[in-house]
Amino acid sequence: MPRGKLITIEGIDGAGKTTLAAGLLSALQTRGVSASRLREPGGVRAAELIRDFVKDPALRIGARAEALLYAAARAQLVEEAIEPLLAGGDWVLLDRFVDSSLAYQGAGRQLGIEAVQAINEFATASLTPDLTLLLEVDPHVGRRRLEGRGAPLERLEREEDEFFFRIASAYAALAAAAPERIAVIDGSQPPAAVLHAAVEAIQRRLMLPAGQSG
Amino acid sequence: MPRGKLITIEGIDGAGKTTLAAGLLSALQTRGVSASRLREPGGVRAAELIRDFVKDPALRIGARAEALLYAAARAQLVEEAIEPLLAGGDWVLLDRFVDSSLAYQGAGRQLGIEAVQAINEFATASLTPDLTLLLEVDPHVGRRRLEGRGAPLERLEREEDEFFFRIASAYAALAAAAPERIAVIDGSQPPAAVLHAAVEAIQRRLMLPAGQSG
Repeated sequence: MPRGKLITIEGIDGAGKTTLAAGLLSALQTRGVSASRLREPGGVRAAELIRDFVKDPALRIGARAEALLYAAARAQLVEEAIEPLLAGGDWVLLDRFVDSSLAYQGAGRQLGIEAVQAINEFATASLTPDLTLLLEVDPHVGRRRLEGRGAPLERLEREEDEFFFRIASAYAALAAAAPERIAVIDGSQPPAAVLHAAVEAIQRRLMLPAGQSG
Repeated sequence: MPRGKLITIEGIDGAGKTTLAAGLLSALQTRGVSASRLREPGGVRAAELIRDFVKDPALRIGARAEALLYAAARAQLVEEAIEPLLAGGDWVLLDRFVDSSLAYQGAGRQLGIEAVQAINEFATASLTPDLTLLLEVDPHVGRRRLEGRGAPLERLEREEDEFFFRIASAYAALAAAAPERIAVIDGSQPPAAVLHAAVEAIQRRLMLPAGQSG
């Protein structure tokens, strides 16, 4: 049994990651790929509890503690879910992974990309995605999409605009530094076009079995 | 206002840390030192919640996630309580700090002292104790004291003997590598003798105001 592939989906809030993950799961399964979809933070019991914890606006959590909590949730998700799935030959679609922490905590919270990278190498035992799909949208577009959901914005989502611009720039810099791993997709396109671009990126880079596109 | 001093108390479970911390708080206050006593993991709301979480035997938490959760709790404690106290001139007595993670996670769980040190430098923004009191007892003595409490042993405490011997060895190695910071005290002595030795170590190293001993 060949080891499965890890595909991560990244981008600012409102970029369309969840929609893409759902579409991609169907597209992979249509091609006969056994695939699982997970989200961060969460995916396993301890990580879901950490998720609730980090997102609780009533709780005082500093930037360093926040980065370490995300890393802890990630460590448990890797050990308990991702590694066993990959070892069993499954492909894993993951909504956010290390790049999110580099962008949000390293750049957004200004803790430093390298320091956050070091913590996350420890957390993941250096697991690196086979492919990362980065959905790029103008931060203002992302913000409008979030507001359109009508749901109360969570703590991170209420941060000021400048924070989101730092994150978007960090994502762009990460993609420029690792073009062999990170495929940049224009997230302002309609969902079907985003999905099509994602499937093409997967076919080009991971030798996905051919099949009906999108 | 001169910055306060950070004194950490370390040792295996059952070494007598809590008893010493209580005695030391009185001894410092008797000498006119404004001192606070904190414990790890815990001391502030988010850290207490993380403490409950890590100690819940029903929850599946791997070694890496555990080390990161302890570091997250520590980061919040440093930012929210320890740094403000020290800045205000208070002395802080802290039951466990970074050395605990080096010994328990680095050596006990075999994650590596250096990797755990790196995470903790991030967590604490490199805050280092002015003095560390290491209570040394034979691991079997520690175990018997814990059993004598009659309370159900928590998850960490139920680990096998070899784990505790690795921790005791790591503590000894840390003390040997940093004799200027770590004072080793024989924890098998009666509590009053342990307290006397601790007060002497503080007087010798931190210029504690003179006063009645113990």
